[in-house]
Amino acid sequence: MNTNTGKVTLLSAGPGDLDLLTLKAVKALAAADVVLLDDLANPDIVTLAPQARVIRVGKRGGCRSTPQAFIERMMRRYALKGLHVVRVKGGEALLFGRAGEEIAILRDAGIALDIVNGISSGFAAAAGLGISLTHRRHCHGVTFVTAHTEDHGEPDWAALAATRTTLAIYMGMRRIGSIAAALLASLPADTPAAVVQWAGAIAERRLLTRLDRLAADAVDAGFDSPAVILVGDAIGESVEAEYGAAAGALTAVDKADDGVVAQAA
Amino acid sequence: MNTNTGKVTLLSAGPGDLDLLTLKAVKALAAADVVLLDDLANPDIVTLAPQARVIRVGKRGGCRSTPQAFIERMMRRYALKGLHVVRVKGGEALLFGRAGEEIAILRDAGIALDIVNGISSGFAAAAGLGISLTHRRHCHGVTFVTAHTEDHGEPDWAALAATRTTLAIYMGMRRIGSIAAALLASLPADTPAAVVQWAGAIAERRLLTRLDRLAADAVDAGFDSPAVILVGDAIGESVEAEYGAAAGALTAVDKADDGVVAQAA
Repeated sequence: MNTNTGKVTLLSAGPGDLDLLTLKAVKALAAADVVLLDDLANPDIVTLAPQARVIRVGKRGGCRSTPQAFIERMMRRYALKGLHVVRVKGGEALLFGRAGEEIAILRDAGIALDIVNGISSGFAAAAGLGISLTHRRHCHGVTFVTAHTEDHGEPDWAALAATRTTLAIYMGMRRIGSIAAALLASLPADTPAAVVQWAGAIAERRLLTRLDRLAADAVDAGFDSPAVILVGDAIGESVEAEYGAAAGALTAVDKADDGVVAQAA
Repeated sequence: MNTNTGKVTLLSAGPGDLDLLTLKAVKALAAADVVLLDDLANPDIVTLAPQARVIRVGKRGGCRSTPQAFIERMMRRYALKGLHVVRVKGGEALLFGRAGEEIAILRDAGIALDIVNGISSGFAAAAGLGISLTHRRHCHGVTFVTAHTEDHGEPDWAALAATRTTLAIYMGMRRIGSIAAALLASLPADTPAAVVQWAGAIAERRLLTRLDRLAADAVDAGFDSPAVILVGDAIGESVEAEYGAAAGALTAVDKADDGVVAQAA
């Protein structure tokens, strides 16, 4: 009979602002013995777990990082010792990342697991832009896709575009040029597009433009990861309200210090 | 100069469990003068706004409901009187629903707007099933789509299937038979599929099966809205861990009272 009191909480830290944590997340952190902290989570989150031992397990794509196997062994070891391990991931843990693998490892080891959902940056980005990700007039849905894949293959951009859903593209900044080019083969050149860097964090920056100017405007304005790219007619609701139908073609805009959308040259 | 102190907070209530509210949501509710409460939000949420006037503005598809125009007029009226109106929506306000229209109305009226993100039921469903919505081995993304559209048209199921993303289908229970049939034209019959009713709420029920048995199993087990339908290989991670590769074809399962996945006949 398993009398082990240890457990793992897979905790979604949200996009950065600690106010976007759920009450469940706050409670889990207050009860943690060990916190395994990902790079993409706001490091201030540890202030909510002052009693815990904190171990940083960063895995920023391409950088020297903590091997996944090491992270998994650590979670297992501490939990089997009877400790409450809180595995903190940025955004929503069940979207991208390696939650599926970690869940399987824990299940195989017979370790109790709790999952705490969080706000993914795509939603925070939409909130920052003041738009809905779907719109009754424009589309039936939204597709969250990562441009960064295990086998370094590309998502099928043509197939994604064919759904006519809003596209929320994660981890795409390194390939923003090729992504935009691929989408332009299937979508109108004036399809509204946005980049939001550090969505849902104090440092949030927002760029609103059109698909055929997306890469150029993002590079010119110095946007980089971590950022989410949003493409689709629903994104244009933000601009229409700002400039009105008489403003003509969408133009590149950048956020000023106060977060207001300002007109670039 | 606009000296109006009124504002509207578009607040995502999450899937039901009040513990899944963000800290930001809790603070907004504590500061509300008026709460406009949607049907799909847990009504207990009003306990977090004891000082507020609560007005229920239910719009359950097909039922006699509060007209959208009336809701919008109310929001505007109270805000222009200088009050803080909190418009509570179930799940994530920026996903489906009519947030886009409400945002436009408020912006046109020059009313300050704040948006509070929340946990959409698709994520809560995945957490309940103990799975990631994406998986490095299986897919690059997840598509959130509503089967219920303004013009009563259907989403392009073939196009959605062609993306090879996990599908999270909302408001599809009434059409689950035709949806499954449409997907079967493009996906393997044994594609893992799940239905989660009242995801993220105390009453949560989960069904795990395969695409070709999805409609029959859901009907047999009495699943109904509000529910989210999940389709895709990533969904199968839950079953593989439960039953192992030797279990053969996926079979219909239903949640017992204790929430454990039980084997149906």
